[in-house]
Amino acid sequence: MPEQRIRYAPLRDKICTPAEAAAHITDGNNLFVSGFTAGYPKLIPAELVKRAEAGEKLKVNIFAGASTGDAVDGVLARAGLVGWRRPYMSDRFMRAAINHNEIMFKDDHLSGLSAAVRAGRWGPVDVAVVEVAAVTSRGNLIPTLSVGNTPAYLKMADKIILEVSNVDPPELEGIHDIFMPEDPPWRMPIPIYRTGDRIGKPFMEVDPSRVVAVVYSQEADTCAIFSETDEAALSIAQQLLDFVRHEMKRGRLPKDLPWQSGVGDVANAVLAGFMDDDFFSEVSIYSEVLQDTVLDLIDMGRVRAASGSALTLSEKARERFFRELYRYKEKIVLRSVEISNAPEVIARLGVLAVNTALEIDIYGQVNSTHVMGSQMMNGIGGSGDFERNGAVSFMVTPSTAKNGAISAIVPMVSHVDHSEHSVDVIITEYGLVDTRNLTPRQVAEAVITRCAHPDYRELLWDYYERACRETGGHEPHLLGEVFGFHQRFLETGHMLPDPA
Amino acid sequence: MPEQRIRYAPLRDKICTPAEAAAHITDGNNLFVSGFTAGYPKLIPAELVKRAEAGEKLKVNIFAGASTGDAVDGVLARAGLVGWRRPYMSDRFMRAAINHNEIMFKDDHLSGLSAAVRAGRWGPVDVAVVEVAAVTSRGNLIPTLSVGNTPAYLKMADKIILEVSNVDPPELEGIHDIFMPEDPPWRMPIPIYRTGDRIGKPFMEVDPSRVVAVVYSQEADTCAIFSETDEAALSIAQQLLDFVRHEMKRGRLPKDLPWQSGVGDVANAVLAGFMDDDFFSEVSIYSEVLQDTVLDLIDMGRVRAASGSALTLSEKARERFFRELYRYKEKIVLRSVEISNAPEVIARLGVLAVNTALEIDIYGQVNSTHVMGSQMMNGIGGSGDFERNGAVSFMVTPSTAKNGAISAIVPMVSHVDHSEHSVDVIITEYGLVDTRNLTPRQVAEAVITRCAHPDYRELLWDYYERACRETGGHEPHLLGEVFGFHQRFLETGHMLPDPA
Repeated sequence: MPEQRIRYAPLRDKICTPAEAAAHITDGNNLFVSGFTAGYPKLIPAELVKRAEAGEKLKVNIFAGASTGDAVDGVLARAGLVGWRRPYMSDRFMRAAINHNEIMFKDDHLSGLSAAVRAGRWGPVDVAVVEVAAVTSRGNLIPTLSVGNTPAYLKMADKIILEVSNVDPPELEGIHDIFMPEDPPWRMPIPIYRTGDRIGKPFMEVDPSRVVAVVYSQEADTCAIFSETDEAALSIAQQLLDFVRHEMKRGRLPKDLPWQSGVGDVANAVLAGFMDDDFFSEVSIYSEVLQDTVLDLIDMGRVRAASGSALTLSEKARERFFRELYRYKEKIVLRSVEISNAPEVIARLGVLAVNTALEIDIYGQVNSTHVMGSQMMNGIGGSGDFERNGAVSFMVTPSTAKNGAISAIVPMVSHVDHSEHSVDVIITEYGLVDTRNLTPRQVAEAVITRCAHPDYRELLWDYYERACRETGGHEPHLLGEVFGFHQRFLETGHMLPDPA
Repeated sequence: MPEQRIRYAPLRDKICTPAEAAAHITDGNNLFVSGFTAGYPKLIPAELVKRAEAGEKLKVNIFAGASTGDAVDGVLARAGLVGWRRPYMSDRFMRAAINHNEIMFKDDHLSGLSAAVRAGRWGPVDVAVVEVAAVTSRGNLIPTLSVGNTPAYLKMADKIILEVSNVDPPELEGIHDIFMPEDPPWRMPIPIYRTGDRIGKPFMEVDPSRVVAVVYSQEADTCAIFSETDEAALSIAQQLLDFVRHEMKRGRLPKDLPWQSGVGDVANAVLAGFMDDDFFSEVSIYSEVLQDTVLDLIDMGRVRAASGSALTLSEKARERFFRELYRYKEKIVLRSVEISNAPEVIARLGVLAVNTALEIDIYGQVNSTHVMGSQMMNGIGGSGDFERNGAVSFMVTPSTAKNGAISAIVPMVSHVDHSEHSVDVIITEYGLVDTRNLTPRQVAEAVITRCAHPDYRELLWDYYERACRETGGHEPHLLGEVFGFHQRFLETGHMLPDPA
């Protein structure tokens, strides 16, 4: 069994227990882990917790590709072992500790992180802990279901610990395309011209002498759970597809543009919309995280190519994927996140970018990260990479949250991640506004009357009208009451003064 | 004389008076004009004003490269002839009319506009009015001191009117590099690998049959006026150069990165700082607008190459430039703005981006455009192109404006153009904060104690401390009083409650 997975003999000598492997990690270490929703280590973090519980003083800084599972973020956050955490995370314990200022967190555009690590800007890469599906006969590494920043982490790591997964089939080999771009100033273009172009190697290169330990893992990724698509998501997806179809038919958008679609129900609904839409008979997907719907579309023969940095699947979809891997491998490419999210490639291909907002203001500024302006949700992730560089950038959100207590359309967003200059089209279940040829005032009028929930339209209109009259200017605002909606919610639990 | 400037004989037959040329422009036309600080038409707009004064109903939409001179924006705005104006402008009459909602204006990242025009997204290009230095023997066009979006405007124009400048020397030929990138989805990389690379033709291609009129112009661009560099600008420049030198010496930044520097005194001071700094013995400049200091640096032999979309010179510098054009042409390349500002190229070269903010908040969000949140200043211009994609992005501003009545460091900016994710280093005359490895709270503490003006530190600290205590979270804010500084200024004319 080990022989099949570890085809480079010297690394078989490094096989040890998780506790022995974790002994290479000491207090204050920078720990760079694989993982981008999937593909994170499962065994080593728990060993650190055991040592801390036994009385050892132990705190580490955790750098991943993006979010990981409970086995990394949950386990370490609950035990209070995390100093810094970067970048994007979605674990609720980690989130709470970050918002309590107990864990240091900085939110970054995902596309730039590998380069920052190579430049030494994140400090020394003391230990890299990486889940792999196999080791090649020359000692190179086959990733599991994500790539993330792992190639850069491996390149810079002093010590490397491998978790060889016995769950992910070794036939994953060949689905990855690992290309490490050059760094400035003598940097060549990233030579991707089509969504499915393979420009690198099927493995992550590594100096095997820096591998200090190898452990076997029987643990699978925690699977994604997708809720049934609701009415709002369906309506948003339908409007979006209608809009794009219309633009393509009028010749204002070429037909062959690839799609990016963020994580979540609305994003999934957009992709699902392709299934019964013959206009989009064959689509390309140049995205960050690929979800269940991509497999469905492949099964229907509707995918030309699907590129991402990770596969996040439900349990059922993962079984299906593993069973017919040979077939899905023809369509799917997994890349490092500095390639899946490369501004250069996104702009070149002309990606249609679809991302979900927490809140959008009447002038089209978008908050993706901070609830009520102060509480970090997950992070900006790749949304800034795609929205800023896509051919058309869509920001979607249901018009309300918490059963109507929160309006997603507000006078001014309480935090800005994407400025109006980088957001083209705004969609809620009530309507769509193409802001590209509208003045800010026209955007406000359209967003209030078309996108806002009817319960909030009068309030928004009242704010806007008074701002025009009392303040005027290019983007009229009443700075004294601009966050009235938010303050009311914080005080009463509802953004409406008199909720029905 | 005409023969020398117009080497393509059929176009000589189109020579006419400005009034005859302007007759091709009718009410409701989309008028696409050359001009990017320099190089705008000087004669045709005035003819439209004459017609309007004589009673003709006349309104046009004005699309330029960026700002133009009084001969376009001033003349037309004062006469009330402008429907839409895009993008960036800096004329005070135009600005006032935009803020009074009399002229429609939308602010855009400059890098994407040529592509939008080619895609038909700005509507039909009814008439292009273009200043040129000469017409080649095959009917192609030599621009004057800017390129901007003109190549795309010419490609799409139904009718073209040329203003052949008799002021700009025909020897300008050869300084321009005109390359029109492909559009998605079958788009190749922009093949620039070094600041000075020439990848296109020295002229703008045009179908001469669409040239409907040619006029001669004796009018020069209004020259830039630079004020004496003040203490604050010098201090900012010095800190910036010290920081970069330090990072380069520690090996965290390669030495050969090119510089971008926005318009204005601080930007000029940064470049001037190279003059007596032997560490930066030879610099490359990959920027948008090149100013006087670039000529000074070339004279000192300190410029490897300087690339931009326009040359904005003082009267004295322009005389010098014209006199020794042969020498400056070896170092300077003028490109269209979709190349000078291309995110792909900026990221590839690893540009060090330096731009000026109107205000910066304690968490590093930046306002470049809206005074007190509502009044448009000039526009975002290329600052978003460079800040988002540069290797290191600097945002600089004097700590106060209006003799201390306005603090440039505020609890929350009243409008966001650049999010904290796209801004690396913040500098005022008091200090510098490298935000790249700091949490938002650490950024706030550093910005308040190092960058804010001493008169405002206590107020800012009081706000921040109460926000941490009363709200908490990742970026603590007190939404009810977050714009207290701005409101106080609007009410009393000063951001301090008790100005000394």
